[in-house]
Amino acid sequence: MKRLAVLGSTGSIGTSVSRVVARFPDRFAVTALAARGNVELLARQIGLHAPRIAVVADEARAKRLAALLPDSKTEILHGPEGYAQAASLPDVDMVVSAMVGAAGLLPTLAALSAKKTVALANKETLVMAGALVTETARKNGVSILPVDSEHSAIFQCLQGQDRSALARLVLTASGGPFRILEKEALANATPGDALRHPNWTMGKKITIDSATLMNKGLEVIEARWLFDVPVDNIGVVVHPESVIHSMAVFHDGAVLAQMGVPDMLVPIAFALSWPDRLPLAQLVPDLASMGKLTFEEPDTERFPCLKLAYQAAREGGAYPAVLNAANEEAVGAFLDRSLSFPGIAEAVEDALSAFPAPGKLELEDILAADAWARARVARRVDGEV
Amino acid sequence: MKRLAVLGSTGSIGTSVSRVVARFPDRFAVTALAARGNVELLARQIGLHAPRIAVVADEARAKRLAALLPDSKTEILHGPEGYAQAASLPDVDMVVSAMVGAAGLLPTLAALSAKKTVALANKETLVMAGALVTETARKNGVSILPVDSEHSAIFQCLQGQDRSALARLVLTASGGPFRILEKEALANATPGDALRHPNWTMGKKITIDSATLMNKGLEVIEARWLFDVPVDNIGVVVHPESVIHSMAVFHDGAVLAQMGVPDMLVPIAFALSWPDRLPLAQLVPDLASMGKLTFEEPDTERFPCLKLAYQAAREGGAYPAVLNAANEEAVGAFLDRSLSFPGIAEAVEDALSAFPAPGKLELEDILAADAWARARVARRVDGEV
Repeated sequence: MKRLAVLGSTGSIGTSVSRVVARFPDRFAVTALAARGNVELLARQIGLHAPRIAVVADEARAKRLAALLPDSKTEILHGPEGYAQAASLPDVDMVVSAMVGAAGLLPTLAALSAKKTVALANKETLVMAGALVTETARKNGVSILPVDSEHSAIFQCLQGQDRSALARLVLTASGGPFRILEKEALANATPGDALRHPNWTMGKKITIDSATLMNKGLEVIEARWLFDVPVDNIGVVVHPESVIHSMAVFHDGAVLAQMGVPDMLVPIAFALSWPDRLPLAQLVPDLASMGKLTFEEPDTERFPCLKLAYQAAREGGAYPAVLNAANEEAVGAFLDRSLSFPGIAEAVEDALSAFPAPGKLELEDILAADAWARARVARRVDGEV
Repeated sequence: MKRLAVLGSTGSIGTSVSRVVARFPDRFAVTALAARGNVELLARQIGLHAPRIAVVADEARAKRLAALLPDSKTEILHGPEGYAQAASLPDVDMVVSAMVGAAGLLPTLAALSAKKTVALANKETLVMAGALVTETARKNGVSILPVDSEHSAIFQCLQGQDRSALARLVLTASGGPFRILEKEALANATPGDALRHPNWTMGKKITIDSATLMNKGLEVIEARWLFDVPVDNIGVVVHPESVIHSMAVFHDGAVLAQMGVPDMLVPIAFALSWPDRLPLAQLVPDLASMGKLTFEEPDTERFPCLKLAYQAAREGGAYPAVLNAANEEAVGAFLDRSLSFPGIAEAVEDALSAFPAPGKLELEDILAADAWARARVARRVDGEV
């Protein structure tokens, strides 16, 4: 019986985790559920899983949640301390880190420091503070298991393989909803257009990131830390069918690829049940019926975010944190229609070039870089820089 | 240092093994080389590897070989006893079984009985006597490592995986040189046409087998024994680019595939160096440049050999040995222009339907079935049945 703390339980990943747990009750139990503000869904999940602890963002929401659950024995916590507490409970074996954006960093560090295996869906954690997070995992002797489809694919491909023979990683990208749109048309792309992802059903932030290819850039940085491969040995190929989820290339010329239908259930379940596989009885792609799988180079002229991510990764230090924070704010501004679609990449590029690189790189420097980049984008949106 | 006995050293696989050994002299040494009749090439290989033992098919060839190597210390043996001796030398760690056709069976059994790991390129061994061969390996506590590209692909995909979660195997087939030829045109196909394989450079027998799809049928039966998967859970998909070499499907919906350029060097080297991978620095397929990978169902109406192989595998017993022997003879007759291209499948079908099934299934029954099928095809070629 694996006992879970699910951080971000009401999001896209969290609800899938909840489904897997409900389907395999002899394998998993939920000790803690944490969400930001969707107290109605969280209340239903508490009813289903009866966790010992539930956490929401603030006291007001904690009160609303308590009001929805008059007879529940679940203890309700709130705020950053609540999240950190849920991430480090003694009766938890695995923490699912699936909060959106930079908010996932501190609870993930808390989980690793408390020697919990972390199933990591929050890529921003590794983008912002990859060195710190992987070092914390190493020092505490615990594993970070990827939940992202691409990283799960690579993780699956690397099982039982000669790791010294790993030469390169290749992440596949669907290309997003604007793959074949002319550069000129991108200037008029609306949030509604960008949210229509061709293959994957995901949260808003990650769907916009898929449209800009920033998602793939963040994944390159995530892969760099998860698999300890230099970013220049990580490639990206656009594969609109999203059947091949990613690939590992070995120094003998062999390439291992993981394939499947585009459904997050498989990677989520693999992280939960690793090294076993759960009998999900998912459909598998019928290649003969599909007829073909197609591939193309990513176009970093129309989608400069991918190039910016490589650039930030090569710079290292706090630059990936700046990239990530500037992107989060810019995506928010785009969703609010305060920035155009190309304005997202422009805001990120501006933040990267204006950022005053700090001398050292402790957690505080990363958080300061994060705050600096957010303020910079806000000023840019307001026309101040 | 791994000490090898290479059976079939002058064939397509054997020469690649020789190249790998020559390239990694700190990892491999050759204790024995065995070939059928190409004494000139064998003499060169003896000069290169200085094995303790060399074997050829008969005394006349042994004398010719000795005459080519007046100063060599290599002991020269001949005939079936010579092959069996080379396969079971005490100072050999791994036997590479790469003889063509049914001739590989007895030396492979000798190697397994002498507790040698076998790198198996000779698929006929498992097709004829899969139960006996795998049981011999099990009883002696040794492994059979696949060398065939498709089986190596699956073997690579299964490393470190939850074997209880394995649901299906999918073998890819190039479709061969006649993939898009009309049924009517197949009747006039010549050996020269059939020997022009689009992707792989291989021996004559296997190239004709690729043109009839019998090669894929034999591989289905081979996979059934190597991976202990029922034939009805083994599928075939035609994939003309031969980039995906085969796939393993798990019960969670994940599919693992091994890819690479179509070069036997990678699977050969993996069998030799397993579980490590050698730094071969092979090219890897550039999917973006290729643009697409294509797939289609195999057409068993134009290529009935694939259907016949499934049928023989389902019947079990000595039927796969009959399938294999009838096919070997029929391919020989086609190469001699005594049979038409469609005549190969017809001769195999005739042998399968005329075969009087034996009650038990010892090695003698398998060899008797093999001899019976060869005689049947010979009579058919002569117009007697």
